Amino acid sequence: MASGGDDEQIRNKQVIFKDYVSGFPKESDMYVSTKGTIRLKVPDGSNGIVVKNLYLSCDPYTRNRMTKPDTGNYYVNYLKPGLPINGLGVAKVLDSGHPNFKKGDLVWGNTGWEEYSLITDFQLLFKIQHSNVPLSYYTGILGLPGLTAYGGFYEVCSPKKGDNVFISAASGAVGQLVGQFAKLLGCYVVGSAGSKEKVDLLKNKFKFNEAFNYKEEPDLDATLKRYFSEGIDIYFENVGGKMLDAVLLNMRAHGRIAACGLISQYNLDKPEGVHNLMHLIYKRIRMEGFVVFDYFHLYPKFLEFVLPQIAEGKIVYLEDIAEGLESGPSALVGLFSGLNVGKQVVLVARE
Amino acid sequence: MASGGDDEQIRNKQVIFKDYVSGFPKESDMYVSTKGTIRLKVPDGSNGIVVKNLYLSCDPYTRNRMTKPDTGNYYVNYLKPGLPINGLGVAKVLDSGHPNFKKGDLVWGNTGWEEYSLITDFQLLFKIQHSNVPLSYYTGILGLPGLTAYGGFYEVCSPKKGDNVFISAASGAVGQLVGQFAKLLGCYVVGSAGSKEKVDLLKNKFKFNEAFNYKEEPDLDATLKRYFSEGIDIYFENVGGKMLDAVLLNMRAHGRIAACGLISQYNLDKPEGVHNLMHLIYKRIRMEGFVVFDYFHLYPKFLEFVLPQIAEGKIVYLEDIAEGLESGPSALVGLFSGLNVGKQVVLVARE
Repeated sequence: MASGGDDEQIRNKQVIFKDYVSGFPKESDMYVSTKGTIRLKVPDGSNGIVVKNLYLSCDPYTRNRMTKPDTGNYYVNYLKPGLPINGLGVAKVLDSGHPNFKKGDLVWGNTGWEEYSLITDFQLLFKIQHSNVPLSYYTGILGLPGLTAYGGFYEVCSPKKGDNVFISAASGAVGQLVGQFAKLLGCYVVGSAGSKEKVDLLKNKFKFNEAFNYKEEPDLDATLKRYFSEGIDIYFENVGGKMLDAVLLNMRAHGRIAACGLISQYNLDKPEGVHNLMHLIYKRIRMEGFVVFDYFHLYPKFLEFVLPQIAEGKIVYLEDIAEGLESGPSALVGLFSGLNVGKQVVLVARE
Repeated sequence: MASGGDDEQIRNKQVIFKDYVSGFPKESDMYVSTKGTIRLKVPDGSNGIVVKNLYLSCDPYTRNRMTKPDTGNYYVNYLKPGLPINGLGVAKVLDSGHPNFKKGDLVWGNTGWEEYSLITDFQLLFKIQHSNVPLSYYTGILGLPGLTAYGGFYEVCSPKKGDNVFISAASGAVGQLVGQFAKLLGCYVVGSAGSKEKVDLLKNKFKFNEAFNYKEEPDLDATLKRYFSEGIDIYFENVGGKMLDAVLLNMRAHGRIAACGLISQYNLDKPEGVHNLMHLIYKRIRMEGFVVFDYFHLYPKFLEFVLPQIAEGKIVYLEDIAEGLESGPSALVGLFSGLNVGKQVVLVARE
């Protein structure tokens, strides 16, 4: 148990969410405040923990949480104007009132965009057991993006050897893993991304069979026909809109679409319409949305699968690390113009 | 085997498909011809059968087959201008060169919109074994609409007792059955239709819990919230467009959408856009298209299930029978303005 008596408050730099956003988020929708303070001891009687934040995760889904709450969306955990952004990160325990955590433990899960956080909600907080990998990996390949790729691919896509797999936003935190999982299984894998640099990465670093820059393709239907002359068995959907419409035209009979995210739509007041849903019927396609929270029970199995692959170099992971809490707003906003190359992380402190 | 020698040609009235259609089909897209003739004997050496057509089925899907063939749509069996419409029906065998069929047999399956047909493709032709039900039922409850409802509901919707089920175009050939299957299983069932008469049928004849006239509902989202305060578990999709968008807002977590047809979209040059697909992710919805051809192996099991229910009056079926081959064009066109009440059938001959 924590002991009281130490009342020293220290400065706690924070990234504050200013107000609800419509359209593209801007850096000015957030600001860095140095007015906050925190006591590095757990309050008497609390079962909370005080942590020092090391790495913070920039996630596309955060955009949805910046919208003014809509009564229809019970599934979104909205941000609150005037408070620090909260999200996933890696942190070190400085003091603990919780039996499962002790000083010095490393954890990953829900924390705040600030130097130090008092965590009292443990629904999404895991103790890090394997530290022979970069700690930042727990915001990515060993964290929710990794579990998202694993659950989405193996549980939703019903993949089998030889399947033709297409992945949009393929160089992102989730896409790069799905592609590598599919390659390991013996699939033919094509990814789309938004720059030549990313396309090169997909082909050379992540060993996709093919990749293309969607910004340079005036006719996505023709593009997909070029890469999938026999059609697509599995589409791992990260973007939505026009890409989904083109994919629907190119799916094979009994194809599967795993809907993981629709990043092209998050900043639109009204999402684009998708017109080709008739092809769901023509081709008996199963399109299934999923959220990683339904796959937490698979996390131990996932680590057992992925840690040896990392150790043997069979799966590689690319991060884009922005230095300093101050870089948080630009790093987060950059996701939506595709500035990041690989998983976007904010480094708050090395240890 | 058929014997040759009888060369008498008799008149064979036919409904001819005039030319490819865009927009709503009109009666004038077809015409009745009395110029055709047929010989009521199977040609020497053929394994075909000659039948007298009794009942013809009017199916929404025929609209798709009237469009000019699009290279993208490998799954549509297009109609050919200048030839009789072909489709499903009930017929009586007059002469047979096929070992599985003999004179006097009753069959259902692919035939032509004409008085007599020479059938040489047996991929979709079944001998009728149970004749203690109206023969016209083999165009509906005991034919493809019945198997569609059975396969779509039990194989795609993963239904369970207590589920909240919504069915669009609910008084149609398929919808009326899905609703009754769901009621038998102990679900709460609501249907939409396009007239007061149909709404009354859904509530009084088919025993749906609730039903509404979508044409009188200015805000479908509000309508669905009124009938499904706890959300929808299963949506049996027959219409698409605005209804699908409203349903997506009202699905429950882990809901299932079986996409059977999108009749509201068939007559549009460009289908309406569907905007709320994000809810597939928020609520982890599985949306799956299906076609009845994948469920042919279930047909014997389906008959075993449904025949006793019909005999005991636990499942009722409503047909809208137009008299005479000449009424074919208007009966078919009427589907798209919702003129039919129940399964639309054309009676060509009683026996």
